[in-house]
Amino acid sequence: MAEFDLIARIRARVATRDDVVLGIGDDAALLAPPPGHQLVVTADTLNEGVHFPSGTAAADIGWKALAVNLSDLAAMGARPAWCTLSLSLPAPDTDWVDGFLDGFLALAGQHGIALVGGDTTRGPLAISVTAMGLVEAGAALRRDRARAGDDIWVTGTLGDAAAALAIDGHLPLPPHASLPADLDARALRQRLDRPTPRVAGGRALLGLAHACIDLSDGLLADLGHVCARSGVAATVELDRLPASAALQPLAGDVRWALQASGGDDYELCFTAPPRLRDAVRQALDLAGVQATRIGRIAPGNGVTALDRDGRPWTQRRSGYQHFG
Amino acid sequence: MAEFDLIARIRARVATRDDVVLGIGDDAALLAPPPGHQLVVTADTLNEGVHFPSGTAAADIGWKALAVNLSDLAAMGARPAWCTLSLSLPAPDTDWVDGFLDGFLALAGQHGIALVGGDTTRGPLAISVTAMGLVEAGAALRRDRARAGDDIWVTGTLGDAAAALAIDGHLPLPPHASLPADLDARALRQRLDRPTPRVAGGRALLGLAHACIDLSDGLLADLGHVCARSGVAATVELDRLPASAALQPLAGDVRWALQASGGDDYELCFTAPPRLRDAVRQALDLAGVQATRIGRIAPGNGVTALDRDGRPWTQRRSGYQHFG
Repeated sequence: MAEFDLIARIRARVATRDDVVLGIGDDAALLAPPPGHQLVVTADTLNEGVHFPSGTAAADIGWKALAVNLSDLAAMGARPAWCTLSLSLPAPDTDWVDGFLDGFLALAGQHGIALVGGDTTRGPLAISVTAMGLVEAGAALRRDRARAGDDIWVTGTLGDAAAALAIDGHLPLPPHASLPADLDARALRQRLDRPTPRVAGGRALLGLAHACIDLSDGLLADLGHVCARSGVAATVELDRLPASAALQPLAGDVRWALQASGGDDYELCFTAPPRLRDAVRQALDLAGVQATRIGRIAPGNGVTALDRDGRPWTQRRSGYQHFG
Repeated sequence: MAEFDLIARIRARVATRDDVVLGIGDDAALLAPPPGHQLVVTADTLNEGVHFPSGTAAADIGWKALAVNLSDLAAMGARPAWCTLSLSLPAPDTDWVDGFLDGFLALAGQHGIALVGGDTTRGPLAISVTAMGLVEAGAALRRDRARAGDDIWVTGTLGDAAAALAIDGHLPLPPHASLPADLDARALRQRLDRPTPRVAGGRALLGLAHACIDLSDGLLADLGHVCARSGVAATVELDRLPASAALQPLAGDVRWALQASGGDDYELCFTAPPRLRDAVRQALDLAGVQATRIGRIAPGNGVTALDRDGRPWTQRRSGYQHFG
């Protein structure tokens, strides 16, 4: 009865919401979307050995499996509402599941998202989450709305997660580059393992931002998606990229490689017209989210990164590719 | 660029719907649920070697990955609307993906469900689908509404998929039992590989059925879920269980074991008051779905199966357990 035991274990711990008519325990969940809203849906999978190393703490995996999905909802300006979880496990390890739920449900609680269904199956360790959010009809942020003249902004800081991956040998550095020995690996790994989805930031940007995307593949690659979908070009000044205290010991090419191309940041990158600079800053301040202007949108296509002398910088690595 | 290539390949083939504001290609899909409806959400995963043997045709896997989810929507009486697909592949095999889409999209087209998002990742072969449907507010069929005195019905026929599994050695038979050599293995395997989700049947039962569930774990196990959730008992007459022409060569214990406990049927089992027998039959006739009365709901708890002499029959196997 192990499968049903695991589901009962999960069901006993999940919180609910008033709009969940029927949660875990029937053939499907039954949910009541509010009038005047659109549904925002995203699905992301984490596979052991691909998206996280073997031996990663179960609670960190649980947190991250939900965080990467919430980050997609944030990029659309949606309020998180409901999610499903498909959990494949080599064995019905209840300790592991309890740990996983510690991380998953801690983040779910922060954002008021209810786990309403899914399944547990035997198989190599893998976690598939589908997250559903709600946004006022017509108000969603999208990738295809950037306009020439827009400022380019990012929330938070970039590069910490990539630095953690590089320290552990999971991400190649530029040729002849090395990392200083005094990096705070614990702080960097915390950003890799426990990304902060910028849900309040996305909500604050409704009506202000033109285009928005979350940074999972790396700034330049993700900004490239915005440019391709919007039919515009982007220029980014690498020296403006915001860095955490933990990343300060790094400079130049190595830092830029991690910040511009490393990926796994789960910050928002958005564009907005310069006349709204103060409004953007004020809205994000109220939401408790730091933001930095890093460049401009122009007519054309493609993304150009400039070094501190204003010369084009050649990116060493363009987006994380699972099949690369 | 293999991951993006696969997504482009999928995106080029999917159909859309008027209520899909934004499909594949942004951070999340943007969907417009109609007023007066509730959202029905289910998620099911298929792992290679667990839910299908290695070497199963890609098109059959694609069909089944969607079918098992549509079957859950059917059990709630929902109209299929949208789905996400998380596809983990050992390598970016475009031939395999094309075959998978042949099966997946053929069934999606039959039911007008739009694939609106998901991801492709590297990993052991696994398919996670989340399906979303719509049902008139308050009308959904549920497991917890069976009442003493109800008839128990099943759609279609039972046992074919289990017979196919038994022929291929994937399902143990009762002790000392064997299968006749003249079974039509091809017909039986077709039912295993290409189950028919009873979507029109579920819709037809709105306002008529009290409780409903889809048969994935096996009739007695699934009916047990209905009884547990509804606080009632069920009695099933094994001789009434409907069998396909392909299953006719089998009789007695072996046939009952496959039909009552084998699983993988993806038929609907539902309860309805006897006064609605004609209405139920007429509604399902109109929907093109065959149905058979197989027993009764009574006060109490648990499921009893009766042999042709009316004696309790001991089930040999109680529900498919992925961790069993």
